[in-house]
Amino acid sequence: MHIPYQGNFRWTDIPVKEYKTDGTHFKDITRQILFDDPELACQLRYFEIEPGGHSTLERHQHVHAVMIFRGRGHALVGHSVIPVQTFDLVQIPGMTWHQFRATEGEHLGFLCLVNCDRDRPILPTEEDLAELRQHPEVADFIRV
Amino acid sequence: MHIPYQGNFRWTDIPVKEYKTDGTHFKDITRQILFDDPELACQLRYFEIEPGGHSTLERHQHVHAVMIFRGRGHALVGHSVIPVQTFDLVQIPGMTWHQFRATEGEHLGFLCLVNCDRDRPILPTEEDLAELRQHPEVADFIRV
Repeated sequence: MHIPYQGNFRWTDIPVKEYKTDGTHFKDITRQILFDDPELACQLRYFEIEPGGHSTLERHQHVHAVMIFRGRGHALVGHSVIPVQTFDLVQIPGMTWHQFRATEGEHLGFLCLVNCDRDRPILPTEEDLAELRQHPEVADFIRV
Repeated sequence: MHIPYQGNFRWTDIPVKEYKTDGTHFKDITRQILFDDPELACQLRYFEIEPGGHSTLERHQHVHAVMIFRGRGHALVGHSVIPVQTFDLVQIPGMTWHQFRATEGEHLGFLCLVNCDRDRPILPTEEDLAELRQHPEVADFIRV
């Protein structure tokens, strides 16, 4: 099976979907599923955040393996705010708070690899947010 | 974990390895393992073929999910010879003969996703090669 790249971060016959529709807290993201074969045991997705947008602040048991694919931004991983740019790799360990944020004026696109068999993300409680806000750099990043 | 991209298709602290050392038939390839976590259930590798080089002609039960990452070339998948270029996706089904070949004068780099739990590649017998050579386009591609 050959899926030609069409340019502009789109692939032939791969639909561009809304990131999530269940009302979680995120902004300006699309999702494309590039590989999804049970025999692979994992799924490869391409997410793209509009300039200034961000992903959901969440954690879960399953790990994320991420390759930045377009532009620049920052990643929150636990209590670290990491500047990331095209083709950097980021691994998010299990049960670690994480969020991606695109730099103003730039898209942030990334490939994200996950186990097909995975748990649902958990959103932070008020207590979790209070703990995260105790770290000034984290408080500045999450903006909630 | 953050692994910065260093440019020139190299990543910080990720060693550039020989593709294979067991005497199989290949030419001018390096391998870098980008993600290898049992919790992911899969492994992401970056292979790079020098201009004019090629990967081993082989098949196996496990599937390959490939994203071309650098340059141009051709992929043999079964009896099809497919022109491929940067960011194209190619999925190799199980037990399907396959080989990648870089275009003259260009590197061919690709990300290759595999299940952590996988069988060893099988090389073609003389009978297999005779069958493949019955297809003129395939005979021209495999050059053996």
